Amino acid sequence: MQSDLIISQQAKLLPIADVAERAGILADELIPQGEAKAKVKFSLLQRLDNAPRGKLVVVTAITPTPLGEGKTVTTIGLSQGLKAIGQQVMACIRQPSMGPVFGVKGGAAGGGYSQVAPMEELNLHLTGDIHAVSAAHNLAAAAIDARVYHEQRHGEKFEAKTGLPNLNIDPERVVWDRVVDMNDRTLRRVTIGLNAPGSTANGLERESGFDITAASELMAILALANDLADLRARLGKVVLAYSHDGKPVTAEDIQVAGAMAAILRDAAQPTLMQTLEGVPTLVHAGPFANIAHGNSSIIADRMALRLADVVVTEGGFGSDMGFEKACNIKARAAGKGPDAAVVVATLRGLKANSGQYDLRPGQALPQAIFEPDAAALEAGFANLKWHIENVQRYGVPAVVALNRFPQDTDEELAWLKGQVEALGARVAISEAFAKGGAGATELAHQVMDALAQPADFQFLYEAEQSIEAKLLTMAEAGYGGNGIELSDKARADIARLEALGFGHLPVCMAKTPLSISHDPALKGAPSDFVVPVRGLRLCAGAGFIYVLTGNVMTMPGLPERPGYLNIDIDANGNITGLDE
Amino acid sequence: MQSDLIISQQAKLLPIADVAERAGILADELIPQGEAKAKVKFSLLQRLDNAPRGKLVVVTAITPTPLGEGKTVTTIGLSQGLKAIGQQVMACIRQPSMGPVFGVKGGAAGGGYSQVAPMEELNLHLTGDIHAVSAAHNLAAAAIDARVYHEQRHGEKFEAKTGLPNLNIDPERVVWDRVVDMNDRTLRRVTIGLNAPGSTANGLERESGFDITAASELMAILALANDLADLRARLGKVVLAYSHDGKPVTAEDIQVAGAMAAILRDAAQPTLMQTLEGVPTLVHAGPFANIAHGNSSIIADRMALRLADVVVTEGGFGSDMGFEKACNIKARAAGKGPDAAVVVATLRGLKANSGQYDLRPGQALPQAIFEPDAAALEAGFANLKWHIENVQRYGVPAVVALNRFPQDTDEELAWLKGQVEALGARVAISEAFAKGGAGATELAHQVMDALAQPADFQFLYEAEQSIEAKLLTMAEAGYGGNGIELSDKARADIARLEALGFGHLPVCMAKTPLSISHDPALKGAPSDFVVPVRGLRLCAGAGFIYVLTGNVMTMPGLPERPGYLNIDIDANGNITGLDE
Repeated sequence: MQSDLIISQQAKLLPIADVAERAGILADELIPQGEAKAKVKFSLLQRLDNAPRGKLVVVTAITPTPLGEGKTVTTIGLSQGLKAIGQQVMACIRQPSMGPVFGVKGGAAGGGYSQVAPMEELNLHLTGDIHAVSAAHNLAAAAIDARVYHEQRHGEKFEAKTGLPNLNIDPERVVWDRVVDMNDRTLRRVTIGLNAPGSTANGLERESGFDITAASELMAILALANDLADLRARLGKVVLAYSHDGKPVTAEDIQVAGAMAAILRDAAQPTLMQTLEGVPTLVHAGPFANIAHGNSSIIADRMALRLADVVVTEGGFGSDMGFEKACNIKARAAGKGPDAAVVVATLRGLKANSGQYDLRPGQALPQAIFEPDAAALEAGFANLKWHIENVQRYGVPAVVALNRFPQDTDEELAWLKGQVEALGARVAISEAFAKGGAGATELAHQVMDALAQPADFQFLYEAEQSIEAKLLTMAEAGYGGNGIELSDKARADIARLEALGFGHLPVCMAKTPLSISHDPALKGAPSDFVVPVRGLRLCAGAGFIYVLTGNVMTMPGLPERPGYLNIDIDANGNITGLDE
Repeated sequence: MQSDLIISQQAKLLPIADVAERAGILADELIPQGEAKAKVKFSLLQRLDNAPRGKLVVVTAITPTPLGEGKTVTTIGLSQGLKAIGQQVMACIRQPSMGPVFGVKGGAAGGGYSQVAPMEELNLHLTGDIHAVSAAHNLAAAAIDARVYHEQRHGEKFEAKTGLPNLNIDPERVVWDRVVDMNDRTLRRVTIGLNAPGSTANGLERESGFDITAASELMAILALANDLADLRARLGKVVLAYSHDGKPVTAEDIQVAGAMAAILRDAAQPTLMQTLEGVPTLVHAGPFANIAHGNSSIIADRMALRLADVVVTEGGFGSDMGFEKACNIKARAAGKGPDAAVVVATLRGLKANSGQYDLRPGQALPQAIFEPDAAALEAGFANLKWHIENVQRYGVPAVVALNRFPQDTDEELAWLKGQVEALGARVAISEAFAKGGAGATELAHQVMDALAQPADFQFLYEAEQSIEAKLLTMAEAGYGGNGIELSDKARADIARLEALGFGHLPVCMAKTPLSISHDPALKGAPSDFVVPVRGLRLCAGAGFIYVLTGNVMTMPGLPERPGYLNIDIDANGNITGLDE
């Protein structure tokens, strides 16, 4: 089989205007960006506001190995399979971050014959949305630090000097870090505002840090806003600092929210692309599901649900991660839950979940994991069972997609399929990677069966509960653990956030994706663990409380042999090595 | 008169495909990005490689006030004036940096009836080129710091562990800082790689800094590359660090140059836009003329010179800044010098150059400067005279454009015009701001006269001279000063760069734009000064030695009342306040 990049570059793509027309998007609702991508205008939503709504399918997975289980392949493949069986379908995916593209993970366009194309445009810049998020985020950072600087410099004369209110910002309590869409470990913790002795020309010295842009609250806002007015309002609520008397200082307070909205205006429109088999695909926002909510945007879903009968989207990592947040955060903001969920599983992934191997991120997987091993598969099956039941916990019908790899044996696949069926869940083997949509028609039929079932979607917790009650529910009902352990900082954060009136927000858990628990070493379906809560951060614009559990990094690093080593351009300007 | 933004938003623009067609660009050489902008492919250069070359007009100015003298207005207005008198003309300008847009300067699209439109697209993102420069730059930064980290961590086992050569990089001599396209004073000097006690998980702690993206060497490379292959080769030569034995460590050495080229591939194509009167305009690169070379790209010039008879471009600040670098750096890389230069002058700007006022950046100008004042005008005229002679020093015919403001009197303009004519230079009053091209036809005729004269372009110095000789020539012949004063660091830098074999590169002077000298307080045509040289930095990819004189900042800060205060979006998503 050819490499992903060669398959993508050799694909015969439709002009994007034709893709749009077939999807029901009018020519004047489209802003083409070259031949292969286009922004879709908000006017589409105004035109179709009363159109019947399609069904929303969220693709999730078992607890992944560091290699991933092929969730994007299955998302794209399923959409192609649905098209192949005659459904009017669209896919909605996140924009890949350039950090992992140049780091350890490579691109995120799917793979084989189930890709969004052109994969090099999807993986690099696309239409610039992530850059816009970085710019808006870093404008707010520069603005709050400059405001603190000028307030300090002028003291009581600040108002008279500038005509702006003195917000009495506490320089020690600027809570807005900076972002960059790159894996850069040395930026995790920094001291900013270094000055020559006796000078303050470079602002106030303080410790700060950089997150990867996917972790920015603005990325969450881009994904969770219902429209442009909602986006603008949410930007105003972002808390950048606290005053000396403990009041939140927002982007609106320092009058930077309008400029942030101007920067994000074009990014608020999803980008239309296509799969290798011509399924119209909206690409929008790029949050990570471990350190953010990890789902594509509500705006893209809203558009797709008005254009198509079935919309396939994807939540990051396992169902304890992106799918949980698709239900408890995204569905709450959108007023629409999933109608079905696909749980992607692989033989190798379940064996990795057996607990029989010492797996560490960044290290090669043991060869045994790719070979038949009935005992390991049986032990790892507990993990798949947990994820099926987890999806059902939200009232969402589950369909298991067994994503076939070349080395997989028919015997093990048949055994696994039987086990899933014995649980009463739907299951299909997917060969979407090798065969495209033709390899996913069985899965497509199963999904249509699940969608025929009346949906009974429910949240795991009510937002109005206390923060501690929500965290407890997440740890116990959400992950199967034995409660939570709050650090002193976490207790203080909770008290402060509730006193400020933000106790009613849902919680966005930052957690390792490599276990259902907080501890990456606990494989399968662990039950005997207590979730440590290190601290909580208010994301008033995104509309959630961000909760740090365990040791979660909000800025990855580059590995010893990073992905960029192989990437180059050839004499014709074609990009090479992006899939190596 | 309406505001710039309203004029721009109300303009009837041609579809960009029509603009391209009228300019002689084929449909398959164009990558439209919406209705109003398009990337132009390199295939145009292949098709037109042997086409006759047009004439290149560089617009420069007197020593500017902090308000600017209307150089972009005159550039755009002149191009419209040339079109009005029947010339086939194109304009080439730089992409505005978002730093000044949200800081103190506002947009950079021209103004009044001489603008590139839509101004909000030009001023925000455009087609993402500056974001691409930031991303490529910061990938190199993350890559070199990660390489140092992994080399240190593994020591002698690094090669065996990774299959990569141990470059023996000196952690103390990583010379590649990071960039952000924002005015952010607190990032000027930072400590990166802070770690918890006993840990090195966040890399190696060291002092570092951020420049604004316009100052990035990669921005210079984007502007100075002749084509994509040249761009790729230059990226490989960028020096990121030095080894323990003093050898430069390049982007090629750590195999990151290919990925940087992939990031910059689309940005290497200029963006086609149009002026309010339909003059095709290529927007490309965005270096600042005080901290970089300050000119639009060679690639854009090459395209425009094959399509049009006259190409109007712009060098930043006064003729001691962008124009000097257009001659000594850009023309050397392009193999083509300017055929004529326009020196923009204003009554208020010359009065500001009289030395009679205490002008400080960021503070309001005194009212007197806008009122008739024969003595101040006469005193300030010395500055215009210097810039006319400076242009002529390069063998380039000069045309003075007196950019008229509403409060200017006929008497003072007539006096000034007479003074210029008495010097034997061409001169015209420009009303391009208020009247568009119709206000610049006299200027257009004068420029055509100047172009009829045989050009006799020459460099100020030969690149092969020693670094010290080049600096001396710049200080004396270039600025009219009395030599240079080298700091100890500068002397050491010179010795090191010559020993490494880079002594033959031209010099890129980082200097205040507010005086012909290094000292912003010295107005008019100062002569009794010695240029202090603080240090020199190798830009082996851009192909010049970057020279720091005086106190030049490579990262601006946000003022007390920053430009972003007024910016917002309205209910229809239109951007407001960008011109306030």
